[in-house]
Amino acid sequence: MARQIRHKSKNIGLSPGSLVFVGEKRTEKTTINVIDYNETACDEKELKSMEECAVYRDSDTKSWINITGLDNVKLFEKMGEIFEIHPLVLEDILNTEQRPKLEDFDRYLFLVFKIFYFSKDQNEIESEQVSVIFSSKYLITFQEKNCAVFDPVIERIKSGKGKLRKAGTDYLAYALIDAAVDSYFNLLEMIGEKIENVEDELITNARQENLHTIHQLRREMILLRKSVWPLREVINLMERGDSNHIKKSTGIFLRDVYDHTIQIIETVESYRDMVSGMLDTYLSSVSNRMNEVMKVLTIIATIFIPITFIAGVYGMNFHRMPELSWHWMYPIGFWILIAGIALIMIFYFKRKRWF
Amino acid sequence: MARQIRHKSKNIGLSPGSLVFVGEKRTEKTTINVIDYNETACDEKELKSMEECAVYRDSDTKSWINITGLDNVKLFEKMGEIFEIHPLVLEDILNTEQRPKLEDFDRYLFLVFKIFYFSKDQNEIESEQVSVIFSSKYLITFQEKNCAVFDPVIERIKSGKGKLRKAGTDYLAYALIDAAVDSYFNLLEMIGEKIENVEDELITNARQENLHTIHQLRREMILLRKSVWPLREVINLMERGDSNHIKKSTGIFLRDVYDHTIQIIETVESYRDMVSGMLDTYLSSVSNRMNEVMKVLTIIATIFIPITFIAGVYGMNFHRMPELSWHWMYPIGFWILIAGIALIMIFYFKRKRWF
Amino acid sequence: MARQIRHKSKNIGLSPGSLVFVGEKRTEKTTINVIDYNETACDEKELKSMEECAVYRDSDTKSWINITGLDNVKLFEKMGEIFEIHPLVLEDILNTEQRPKLEDFDRYLFLVFKIFYFSKDQNEIESEQVSVIFSSKYLITFQEKNCAVFDPVIERIKSGKGKLRKAGTDYLAYALIDAAVDSYFNLLEMIGEKIENVEDELITNARQENLHTIHQLRREMILLRKSVWPLREVINLMERGDSNHIKKSTGIFLRDVYDHTIQIIETVESYRDMVSGMLDTYLSSVSNRMNEVMKVLTIIATIFIPITFIAGVYGMNFHRMPELSWHWMYPIGFWILIAGIALIMIFYFKRKRWF
Amino acid sequence: MARQIRHKSKNIGLSPGSLVFVGEKRTEKTTINVIDYNETACDEKELKSMEECAVYRDSDTKSWINITGLDNVKLFEKMGEIFEIHPLVLEDILNTEQRPKLEDFDRYLFLVFKIFYFSKDQNEIESEQVSVIFSSKYLITFQEKNCAVFDPVIERIKSGKGKLRKAGTDYLAYALIDAAVDSYFNLLEMIGEKIENVEDELITNARQENLHTIHQLRREMILLRKSVWPLREVINLMERGDSNHIKKSTGIFLRDVYDHTIQIIETVESYRDMVSGMLDTYLSSVSNRMNEVMKVLTIIATIFIPITFIAGVYGMNFHRMPELSWHWMYPIGFWILIAGIALIMIFYFKRKRWF
Amino acid sequence: MARQIRHKSKNIGLSPGSLVFVGEKRTEKTTINVIDYNETACDEKELKSMEECAVYRDSDTKSWINITGLDNVKLFEKMGEIFEIHPLVLEDILNTEQRPKLEDFDRYLFLVFKIFYFSKDQNEIESEQVSVIFSSKYLITFQEKNCAVFDPVIERIKSGKGKLRKAGTDYLAYALIDAAVDSYFNLLEMIGEKIENVEDELITNARQENLHTIHQLRREMILLRKSVWPLREVINLMERGDSNHIKKSTGIFLRDVYDHTIQIIETVESYRDMVSGMLDTYLSSVSNRMNEVMKVLTIIATIFIPITFIAGVYGMNFHRMPELSWHWMYPIGFWILIAGIALIMIFYFKRKRWF
Repeated sequence: MARQIRHKSKNIGLSPGSLVFVGEKRTEKTTINVIDYNETACDEKELKSMEECAVYRDSDTKSWINITGLDNVKLFEKMGEIFEIHPLVLEDILNTEQRPKLEDFDRYLFLVFKIFYFSKDQNEIESEQVSVIFSSKYLITFQEKNCAVFDPVIERIKSGKGKLRKAGTDYLAYALIDAAVDSYFNLLEMIGEKIENVEDELITNARQENLHTIHQLRREMILLRKSVWPLREVINLMERGDSNHIKKSTGIFLRDVYDHTIQIIETVESYRDMVSGMLDTYLSSVSNRMNEVMKVLTIIATIFIPITFIAGVYGMNFHRMPELSWHWMYPIGFWILIAGIALIMIFYFKRKRWF
Repeated sequence: MARQIRHKSKNIGLSPGSLVFVGEKRTEKTTINVIDYNETACDEKELKSMEECAVYRDSDTKSWINITGLDNVKLFEKMGEIFEIHPLVLEDILNTEQRPKLEDFDRYLFLVFKIFYFSKDQNEIESEQVSVIFSSKYLITFQEKNCAVFDPVIERIKSGKGKLRKAGTDYLAYALIDAAVDSYFNLLEMIGEKIENVEDELITNARQENLHTIHQLRREMILLRKSVWPLREVINLMERGDSNHIKKSTGIFLRDVYDHTIQIIETVESYRDMVSGMLDTYLSSVSNRMNEVMKVLTIIATIFIPITFIAGVYGMNFHRMPELSWHWMYPIGFWILIAGIALIMIFYFKRKRWF
Repeated sequence: MARQIRHKSKNIGLSPGSLVFVGEKRTEKTTINVIDYNETACDEKELKSMEECAVYRDSDTKSWINITGLDNVKLFEKMGEIFEIHPLVLEDILNTEQRPKLEDFDRYLFLVFKIFYFSKDQNEIESEQVSVIFSSKYLITFQEKNCAVFDPVIERIKSGKGKLRKAGTDYLAYALIDAAVDSYFNLLEMIGEKIENVEDELITNARQENLHTIHQLRREMILLRKSVWPLREVINLMERGDSNHIKKSTGIFLRDVYDHTIQIIETVESYRDMVSGMLDTYLSSVSNRMNEVMKVLTIIATIFIPITFIAGVYGMNFHRMPELSWHWMYPIGFWILIAGIALIMIFYFKRKRWF
Repeated sequence: MARQIRHKSKNIGLSPGSLVFVGEKRTEKTTINVIDYNETACDEKELKSMEECAVYRDSDTKSWINITGLDNVKLFEKMGEIFEIHPLVLEDILNTEQRPKLEDFDRYLFLVFKIFYFSKDQNEIESEQVSVIFSSKYLITFQEKNCAVFDPVIERIKSGKGKLRKAGTDYLAYALIDAAVDSYFNLLEMIGEKIENVEDELITNARQENLHTIHQLRREMILLRKSVWPLREVINLMERGDSNHIKKSTGIFLRDVYDHTIQIIETVESYRDMVSGMLDTYLSSVSNRMNEVMKVLTIIATIFIPITFIAGVYGMNFHRMPELSWHWMYPIGFWILIAGIALIMIFYFKRKRWF
Repeated sequence: MARQIRHKSKNIGLSPGSLVFVGEKRTEKTTINVIDYNETACDEKELKSMEECAVYRDSDTKSWINITGLDNVKLFEKMGEIFEIHPLVLEDILNTEQRPKLEDFDRYLFLVFKIFYFSKDQNEIESEQVSVIFSSKYLITFQEKNCAVFDPVIERIKSGKGKLRKAGTDYLAYALIDAAVDSYFNLLEMIGEKIENVEDELITNARQENLHTIHQLRREMILLRKSVWPLREVINLMERGDSNHIKKSTGIFLRDVYDHTIQIIETVESYRDMVSGMLDTYLSSVSNRMNEVMKVLTIIATIFIPITFIAGVYGMNFHRMPELSWHWMYPIGFWILIAGIALIMIFYFKRKRWF
């Protein structure tokens, strides 16, 4: 989280619209993939240069151009010319710390959102920014790194099942958002599992590491919430559909994914409540253990302190201590005295329910 | 709660509108019951197949079709054809983790809400999702498992008492919502009783288990609140009544049940305040007990430490210790000294009000 | 508070509008009192049966019918017929756990609010629900038990002072609400006094009972707030005056009582802040006392532990311990050593400002 | 604060509009001062009776009538007649626990707000309610006690500098509000200084008195906020200026003072954050000192407990204890053993960074 | 923060619009710099007196007049005359404790915001108020002290790159706001780094200084938030663009910087969550260390207390203690007894997982 704002300083002081890649470089090469499809045909290929994209701009088929890798600034300037994209939009695409948003530029719509996936390499949840530009004829996606979140959508286009091939690019945009929201559900499941694990540990054996995990969970949820809340607004904006690039018929699907975002937000809120309850449990566990430690000390000390005093008394060297010469005093009298004091103490603690 | 989001992953990556049952299978068989009624007659029977439902779609009588068990996907596809239900609605019905909502599809209204009941088998509060599709002529309810919450409504239809037989399906929908809200009152009563029990226990004997119960109460209230808040909106939407399937005359009844939802929300909020007060009491109890332990230790220790020192002094082996040979020193002088020190200490503690 | 939702279960499963008394029975007999008045005359009497009420429905004089005791269901059915009251309204009157509200039924207005009074019998604050039905010609109040809150209003009608006799039933309704709000001020005063008492006690001698009182105060404030917030809305609704039973001229008085409710809400909020501050004070007091206990233990222990060790050393039986035979060792040397150690310790604690 | 609601009970049960002074009597005599001015002249005098005010009601000059002392009820009845003031307004003026508000009575505007000043007599911050009634021709202020807050305004009228003499009574009302808001800035400064002082003390020497001061600060801020929030609304209402007693040209000045109220609110919010941070610091200080006490006890105890045991061992009377007769055992061997144990302990504590 | 309200008292009691410098004097001399530019030319010079500014007021070129140093009140009166600026605006410019705001005076717009920069001299974050007055022909900025935040903007004007020279003064105003917001990002980065440092320290070695740093971070964030929130509104107001001094084409750039402010607000919110988590970690660390101290004490004490008692017993002087004369009792029996007791204790602690 703290890192999130770091790179911004790279383009401070530059003229607005200046293209600078803001983010961690994550891929070696920028690749351009196109899926060109209509109701009957579907053609997928990798392009060598940005110039080849030009044909897809006004062709009758629908085209999904997927660009992976954002650090080749030249290429984006070229693209800006071909598709007549506003420089501020290009700047936003290259800045991977955007807030989800939808902007309507008449000729095209500009859409930014986040996806989350579990990276097996790093054993960590990673987030990825996806920028989408789409008009009725084409849809361009921008990602830093190719990840599996959109694979089911690609499969559905290729197989020709479902509405995807028949519907327009607005439905494709919906399908991508839907896939992103599904990736949030995956993240939520992971968080849910972690919460359950930590809860079990807290009951059996609360350690300071749990506190660390609790704070990590909180951060992941903050991250998720920061992505979902604005996305919800974005979807709402799309559904109300003032743009002529979004058809009325897509509205019902957008409403469906809108409901999903609300469900995610509510679950995150529930989780937050649970996590703050876990903090209480942790603190109470720690204080309980402290109590137990204190009790043991107190019980041992209060039993032995008086009897040690008795032993001290009979260790005194007064010339005239009649008890010292009594015949059964040590073997019987003394030990009965000692045991009596100990038993009174133990009885007292029992009554106080200290053990 | 943590489990609540689990099953969602079952249909991730599928085309929207694909029918997959999302939930725990809870019944063996899908059953279809129909109550076909009008002002004068009432006929109840169990149907063998979905095709038999078709007659109720446009008949003049009002028909309540109750479908229990949601894992027979084929059957729902059939039903979708007969009643011309949108695939997304069917998907929502099969997904038992929906948020309460009302959607208007002109030809019919789609309504989802939750009911709560105490399952004696599992000695636990269970929640159940109820989906309702209704037009002016029919009303279809979908549940995972048959539970007793709607039995009073069935009784009232059969007996012909009250407005139910005379009024339309919108009044039946109201009656079902009313029964659901009544089930929330039941849950609230149980929570209220638990709160009272825990409060009594906290005063007499605070244990860590109470903390567990407090957190469980909090979760049940979160669950309840998550069901009531959107239901309130749903009822409000129905009352404002833009749909031509809901009559103006039902409005006053909806307003009544709307008041009930507000009452539930307010009670839950009061309970939350009380539960957070209980947390304070618990923590204060624990810290009080700690104090008591510390006081006992301190009193015992501060009384015996000085007198043990005195005993130690007269146990020393200095050749010239005149006190040792004084005749009344041990039997009287020593014990007076000891008792004096102890009394001073006790007096000091009394003045400090330590006991 | 926890009890508040209990009785609701009595009418679960019944048809809406079924009349069941929901509440604790508090009076033996249902009594019907009428004050029939106009600008010049005023007549008060107790009625034997509900039928006698009928004459007041359309008479030219204004009539205030006060019904005490709500468990005689038959009587209310009769009344429903005479005044043509909607069954849901009757149900609400009999359910003493209503939320304050105003409902406009064209022919009459239905108003529910709470009053609070200090019951000397039970030494406790009691709340009472008052339901009011009024048209331009009559005003009916329903209470469980007769309490003194409305007595000043009755006095003012009888004496003919003030605007009451001249103004309409809407002004009478205002006067009743005003009396209710005055009863809240009384409750606030009691709470304020309790807060002051607890604060004084917390400073001199914090005990766990204070915590109990603090939580009780919190509940009373929750109760009060739950009654005032919706009442504020009710008054606002009346003031905006869409109903033709409320005259414009009453508006300024309603605005006055509206200001009072805001004042109550703000005072309650201030009190909440104070009460949460008291919780801090309590916890800090407890932890301070713990500190004091610990300090006493530590001071006593750290002074005596080293000198007890010295005494132990000279109690050893080594054959060759030259100090033992030194002539002034015990009477002077030993005691100087002991005193020296103790003084060093005391000096150290002084410098650390431990006492 | 707790006292704030006390006096209200004085007029419970009375007819609305009954004049009763609600507040603490603070002045001996009610005085009436008039400043009668226009662009060219300015005349100040003290009036003997209320009747003399009548001439200022419709005169062409602007008149500021300042009434100090509110317990002479008769006088206010007289005034009500002369200026035709609504009885509820008079009741509000006499009740010194009003919430800041603006009410428009066509013929005049009624304005209530609070001022704060530091009373040197009582070494305490005092609040004072100011009620203002003004039309285009006159402005009447009501205060319990004469305080210096409005002196600069009087000076400016007399000297004829600035806009005051040229502008209307609405500008005078603005000038009074501005002076009141300035008095809040004074209070804020005092609070700010106190906060700084307490913060310094908390770092050097946290005592329970600091907690007391923190809570007092919190109350003063609550008090201030309760006065500023509604005043902000009042000013906003005046600025929007539906009343024909307020000129458009005064709007820009009202906007200026409106900005000041927002600044005060924001500063109070910042202070609240700081004060809650101080509470954390205090609690952490207390717990830190506790830690230190514990550490000293533990270090002393854990060093001496083992060596006291060693001394105890060689004080035993076993017949056969060879060490006792070793020649260098006591003077060298024993002390080396004791020192060794102590050093190991000290080394252990050093490594744990306990000192 | 506490200091922020101090200086306000300087102009309390003065007539509104009286010019008084409210702030700390930070520069020796007031300097006036002008950059006069249009699409083709750019001329920068320092003016000697305010009168020289007059020519820029209505010239065809765009002029940026930058005034540094605010304590020369005469100069501002002169300027007020030349540019016909409302006295309240001048008062606001001289008061360096303004809240960010935008005011539209038809002939010109008045804009106030804050910038933040890290002062190397003082090793501290400093804030600076910037006031801007602009019409279509000129833009005047007022600062207390010249700082580097606007240098990139000056560079861009001089170099003629980007849109600045072509666009109007509204775009220049945007560029200044953009530079200010960039300075917030810088501050955020610093805060982010500090948070990371403190977090690392808290895990390895929590000290009370960390608490101090945490509170300092909180204050810096409060300060930042207080500047960003109203700035967001200001930008929103500018974007909606009712003023004829702001062109539609600038709207898209304002929307961009608006997005940046939201990003800052969200990051601050995340940081707040993280910082409050750090407080939990700190408190938990402190309480953990306390636990450790207690454990060491308890372990040492509970092992030695019983064996010290045994040693005490055999130091008693009873005449008849048979064990004392047993031959192997001391060298073997006694030590086995002692070791046995110690081992049992250690075993008990191990099982309790105390070490």
